[in-house]
Amino acid sequence: MDASAHVFDQAIALTALGDDRFEGHTSDAYWNMVGPFGGITAATALNAVLQHPALLGQPVALTVNYAAALAKGRFIVVARAARTNRSTQHWSIEIRQDDADGVPAVVLTGSVVTAVRRETWGINDAPMPAVPAPDAVRGPPWVAPVAWIQRYEVVQLDGALPQHWDGAVSAADAAQASLSRLWMRDAPPRPIDHCALTALADVFYPRIFLRRRRRVPAGTVSMTVYFHADDAALRATADGHVLGQARAHGFGAGFHDQSAWLWNAAGQLLATSVQVVYYKE
Amino acid sequence: MDASAHVFDQAIALTALGDDRFEGHTSDAYWNMVGPFGGITAATALNAVLQHPALLGQPVALTVNYAAALAKGRFIVVARAARTNRSTQHWSIEIRQDDADGVPAVVLTGSVVTAVRRETWGINDAPMPAVPAPDAVRGPPWVAPVAWIQRYEVVQLDGALPQHWDGAVSAADAAQASLSRLWMRDAPPRPIDHCALTALADVFYPRIFLRRRRRVPAGTVSMTVYFHADDAALRATADGHVLGQARAHGFGAGFHDQSAWLWNAAGQLLATSVQVVYYKE
Repeated sequence: MDASAHVFDQAIALTALGDDRFEGHTSDAYWNMVGPFGGITAATALNAVLQHPALLGQPVALTVNYAAALAKGRFIVVARAARTNRSTQHWSIEIRQDDADGVPAVVLTGSVVTAVRRETWGINDAPMPAVPAPDAVRGPPWVAPVAWIQRYEVVQLDGALPQHWDGAVSAADAAQASLSRLWMRDAPPRPIDHCALTALADVFYPRIFLRRRRRVPAGTVSMTVYFHADDAALRATADGHVLGQARAHGFGAGFHDQSAWLWNAAGQLLATSVQVVYYKE
Repeated sequence: MDASAHVFDQAIALTALGDDRFEGHTSDAYWNMVGPFGGITAATALNAVLQHPALLGQPVALTVNYAAALAKGRFIVVARAARTNRSTQHWSIEIRQDDADGVPAVVLTGSVVTAVRRETWGINDAPMPAVPAPDAVRGPPWVAPVAWIQRYEVVQLDGALPQHWDGAVSAADAAQASLSRLWMRDAPPRPIDHCALTALADVFYPRIFLRRRRRVPAGTVSMTVYFHADDAALRATADGHVLGQARAHGFGAGFHDQSAWLWNAAGQLLATSVQVVYYKE
């Protein structure tokens, strides 16, 4: 562990063990309620692929399924190139950790697609919404009694965590009722890369909190991130703020979805993401 | 193979080989350009999970990554319960097929989350758009020189395949430029289930065709489906039409995304889905 490294890099650090296996360690700095912040776990899973000696290209898509909360301590990431084509590569990922009885168990499954990205025609059909610049607004406080919150510098715009948990179902129209917008970046600022972008895609708290203004047990079950940003777009973003927007479409029978969009301050679409979230009651 | 079964059920049929392995066979009836229709392959992958003796609950999320086109013939689906919790289960999936030299190769990777779904508070925040009923409109023809197209009864509303491939980039606004809407169901009609819903999520042709009005090489690389419909919603849908809507958000460096929404005619949100599509030029 390089103690002089950024706290994010410390958290996602892996030691290659060979045979597609990497050893990591949970980070207290990114601790959530009963396990690490899901975004940091997803970033760590991606990091194993990016550090793998057989890697081809850049990340295009990532899916992680959170099978169980990680306990504090050591874990193993297995990243296997299931198929390598001429310009794309398909990775299968698992994170394993010994359970309380010392038996190895799967805590995360997932997949990553990487590709050699070539210049083509392109267009951004998701223009960044018109919002105040990050230094032009003072949003409601970004606080929560969990450590990882302090690892992000956030300016809340719309859809902050409710101040009054009054159980009043939002009167806003369907497209707005679960909508949050915020400027965010690592704290302290750090040049963005695909791992940091992955973690940012999971910064939004469960939409059910906003929609119902009730604290109910909730947690992400599966998350998918599509990387629109290639290395050039990330370099252009540097350590600047990223605008994140999230909303849900359907809630029912214990699960809701979430769609998220991430742009840099110049309006470049960096990533789109979806997740499905478990909730109770 | 039950020859009296619906063509869809014939196509996704699997024979359990034990040890998490199932044998399937590609279907000429669902053939696309250089391999099977991706939707039928995704449905077959899900079918292995649903037929597995260890299955817990109903599907909540599915991700499939298309690593290579399947060749005509036999393939093996491996569906492994990587983790079983009290009410959720995490499945890892691979489809394997011998390559031209007889060497087994991975052609699909994926994951499925299943769960025992319990009644909770719920709401549909993606109301179905106002469109004419399926029998009230005669859209442009739903034709293409591939077999699987005939396996669906489709009424095109907006965003049909271009009639003129003039390379004119759409002048519509960003939210409309890649938007398609259509009524669809299996042909002949068949009561919908999670497998059929999975295939429907992949019915939309690549958004790059609509956006650029150019035929460029394109194909889905990864697809994720979130199932908002539990068994009750599927029973209510029966063999009625499903409204599908799809659009992209970003195109660049060889890949674009697609978001899709599927509702039954009563306006119930059955599924949301995303995919990332490779394209050239």
